[in-house]
Amino acid sequence: MSQPPVQCPLCHETGGLLIVQTPKWRLIRAEDANFPAFYRLVWQAHVAEFSDLGVAERAACMAAVTVVEQTLRAALAPTKINLASLGNVVPHLHWHVIARFDWDSHFPNPVWGAPLRQLDGPAEQWLALPLSELDQRLREALRQHEASAR
Amino acid sequence: MSQPPVQCPLCHETGGLLIVQTPKWRLIRAEDANFPAFYRLVWQAHVAEFSDLGVAERAACMAAVTVVEQTLRAALAPTKINLASLGNVVPHLHWHVIARFDWDSHFPNPVWGAPLRQLDGPAEQWLALPLSELDQRLREALRQHEASAR
Repeated sequence: MSQPPVQCPLCHETGGLLIVQTPKWRLIRAEDANFPAFYRLVWQAHVAEFSDLGVAERAACMAAVTVVEQTLRAALAPTKINLASLGNVVPHLHWHVIARFDWDSHFPNPVWGAPLRQLDGPAEQWLALPLSELDQRLREALRQHEASAR
Repeated sequence: MSQPPVQCPLCHETGGLLIVQTPKWRLIRAEDANFPAFYRLVWQAHVAEFSDLGVAERAACMAAVTVVEQTLRAALAPTKINLASLGNVVPHLHWHVIARFDWDSHFPNPVWGAPLRQLDGPAEQWLALPLSELDQRLREALRQHEASAR
């Protein structure tokens, strides 16, 4: 395996609050005040593009992304889930998985677009459950998924 | 199969320039002057979220997205590929597949973010090949993929 690029932050730092990890990927929470249920599935090895993965790795990656999506939907009943793999600034494969709500600061704009309203107080208080509990549900769902995939 | 929602534009219109379609999905080009190599893989049936698909459908969907990504990379050598399934405005599953270049109007911002520069002339002229030829390569790659998947 080649050395990770010296300058790549996702090779050298967790990149957010670590929720759970496996040898292939890790789930972090982005800790964005406007979008509290904003997670990133980071591929552990340094690859830039989704298609740099082989077919089995792509399946493993999207299966984990799907578990995150399903868990966010079940826990929060969001207006919409947003999935994105951009990496223009940090070209190390990571999937944004974001629960969006019609009341959030930017909806229906993407989180990278213009804000449309200001919330009265922290966004987290509008979620159906505390973030620590949401993190725990994601941890359990992903561990169960990993166990069943073995 | 249930009736498509009356108000859903992607149930009633192609949504862009049709490149190729199968019973499961269609590829359209978004015809965005700033981002000429901007395609969308639209799931034909009306579902809102990626996780509304079954496991085989998710695999078929991402396999097609991957062929689009690989073809754009081979043809254009973009700085980065951007993939996204948002659907906040039109909650009918579609994947944005966008070839991004360090010279484009928004890079490294997402295409939904703030522009950073103005191009001298249409962006299309900076691509390695004409869009009609790019469309044709995508058509061929996806047809070949479909034939091998049967």
